[in-house]
Amino acid sequence: MTPSYTLKIDEITSSIEPPSEAWRERARAHLDTLTKPLGSLGRLEEIAAQIVAIRAERFAEPMKKGVYIFAADHGVTAEGVSAYPRAVTQQMVLNFLAQGAAINVLARLHQAELCVVDVGVDADFGEISGLFHRKVANGTQNMLHEEAMTKAQVEQAMAVGYEVAHQAVAAGINMIAIGEMGIGNTTSASAITCALTGAVADIATGHGTGVSAEAYARKAAIVRAIGERHFGSTIYPLALDVLRCVGGLEIAAMTGMVLSAASHKLVIVVDGFISTAAAAIAVAMAPAARGYLIAGHQSEEPGHKLLLDYLGLTPVLSLNMRLGEGSGAVLAMPILESAIALYTQMATFTSAGVSGAS
Amino acid sequence: MTPSYTLKIDEITSSIEPPSEAWRERARAHLDTLTKPLGSLGRLEEIAAQIVAIRAERFAEPMKKGVYIFAADHGVTAEGVSAYPRAVTQQMVLNFLAQGAAINVLARLHQAELCVVDVGVDADFGEISGLFHRKVANGTQNMLHEEAMTKAQVEQAMAVGYEVAHQAVAAGINMIAIGEMGIGNTTSASAITCALTGAVADIATGHGTGVSAEAYARKAAIVRAIGERHFGSTIYPLALDVLRCVGGLEIAAMTGMVLSAASHKLVIVVDGFISTAAAAIAVAMAPAARGYLIAGHQSEEPGHKLLLDYLGLTPVLSLNMRLGEGSGAVLAMPILESAIALYTQMATFTSAGVSGAS
Repeated sequence: MTPSYTLKIDEITSSIEPPSEAWRERARAHLDTLTKPLGSLGRLEEIAAQIVAIRAERFAEPMKKGVYIFAADHGVTAEGVSAYPRAVTQQMVLNFLAQGAAINVLARLHQAELCVVDVGVDADFGEISGLFHRKVANGTQNMLHEEAMTKAQVEQAMAVGYEVAHQAVAAGINMIAIGEMGIGNTTSASAITCALTGAVADIATGHGTGVSAEAYARKAAIVRAIGERHFGSTIYPLALDVLRCVGGLEIAAMTGMVLSAASHKLVIVVDGFISTAAAAIAVAMAPAARGYLIAGHQSEEPGHKLLLDYLGLTPVLSLNMRLGEGSGAVLAMPILESAIALYTQMATFTSAGVSGAS
Repeated sequence: MTPSYTLKIDEITSSIEPPSEAWRERARAHLDTLTKPLGSLGRLEEIAAQIVAIRAERFAEPMKKGVYIFAADHGVTAEGVSAYPRAVTQQMVLNFLAQGAAINVLARLHQAELCVVDVGVDADFGEISGLFHRKVANGTQNMLHEEAMTKAQVEQAMAVGYEVAHQAVAAGINMIAIGEMGIGNTTSASAITCALTGAVADIATGHGTGVSAEAYARKAAIVRAIGERHFGSTIYPLALDVLRCVGGLEIAAMTGMVLSAASHKLVIVVDGFISTAAAAIAVAMAPAARGYLIAGHQSEEPGHKLLLDYLGLTPVLSLNMRLGEGSGAVLAMPILESAIALYTQMATFTSAGVSGAS
């Protein structure tokens, strides 16, 4: 069960180069020659230029898509922070394997390979097939009272992310969606948001999968207490400490995958609140990773907006979703593919004999 | 060249029934049984329920998509309202036929059949293949000085729309995108917006394909003068009069297609400002048509927002596009397909053995 691929965190963060600004400039110039009014494709033009900057000389290769769901449990569920019982993490993993969940439908429709990774579900899946078995522990500790993970667990979970990224690269995948399943993980994402952005708990806490008003107030108080417990008056705690103290095994694995994917120059589509929390930690560790990120959608969770602002990302979609599983990221993929297809396939004013603007 | 399918306008408007509220309720109840937190698919749930309400017992049939571009010229281009010369309408039609335009790329990628209709381009296309030849006239008259079309021309152009809708139905298409190409047609759409919504010209006029600040001021003044010329102090002119006096041949054809498509219970995805202007006229003529409309995107043109508000539609995408050609509508189609695929394919809590919320 030990990951076959390991690397020191600073080895991977230092290996990340930002996307190519030279290729981005080239892309912008090409966009202005295409048969459309200048700038009329709006955000699609920025997206195309970003993908070209990321992929550089490989920009014209067809997009091969993958979606990676990291599943794990959270000790903080003991505090009653979720509307759903902890067992739902395991049940939803089985639902993914049985092709019944939202992400199965979306991955099938939009032709993204789906990989489900057990990085810390509190259940014994035995040798069940279709699941990538990389359990680090049966969930985290209760972060209200102790550190969620040990340093060794964080590193092991991050290494799971590196390993999955390597497998994606080996399979020729060049655009990835990062998703998760873990009852209780919006509490972790809220605590991460507070630690990284300095936001107060009430602003960074949302209703998750749908807790009542009463349970919401308790959840916000717990998020506040978690921050005080671990970071006290520290204004900018180290990203790795944030991850270890208030993160989750699935979040650490996603952080690792973002870092490794950025070092391999993949297009990384982040999903909602939890996925973006992992990406934010990755960028705090390695700022150059930011240029590889595309925000698939704006989730209903209020903390998501804080993290997107922290990352300087504008979401592609805004459809009031709050499901996780990578669903918002995969839903954005046809838009991203459209952007690069327009870039590579449209005629120019010259080639089509169309008159330009006066 | 005479349309093979003709119908009186009031015959078609009276044949439109609103989508089924019974099916919509059934859809909402089913959505709440699927393995996801209640309401967590956000707008996708509303979209799925709308498609089920439209398609009723045929809701599970695969979506077969078509995009229809109606092209025509505008007499008002004599006033210098566009950044591009009038000849670009013809040139872009040829670009569509040569597969070089944005809509060709998007239709190919998202597997929508593309149909390009000449309903009034000021050019002789001869017997060129790949074009649906239904020219009513070589463009409209200059609406600054006279009515854009005669009553006979409006009816003939609308009948082209009915005919195209019938062909779509015959081909098994159940989701259509309505787009256009016509240099000068944002001026017409602005004049329609003022007439239908009561907005002042400065608010309803935008930069179109990219006119300068100076040309913009002239364009807004022209839109104002057009309104005064045709409607004077009439507060709510009749929709058919609006279409005839300040519309366009492509706009009339799109209005006809919307009406016919609604009577056939197709899912109608409107595109940007001009497409929505046509849909707004259709709804003014037949309010029951509204329930068949989905706004593909929010265009950069300021008048588009006024029309979407007039229609009570919330756009699926908001990507700062302002291209036309049906591009924003086709781009939204993968989202709409996702919504109905989730609806028909996801497991329920019961079937998957997943615990519900407390």
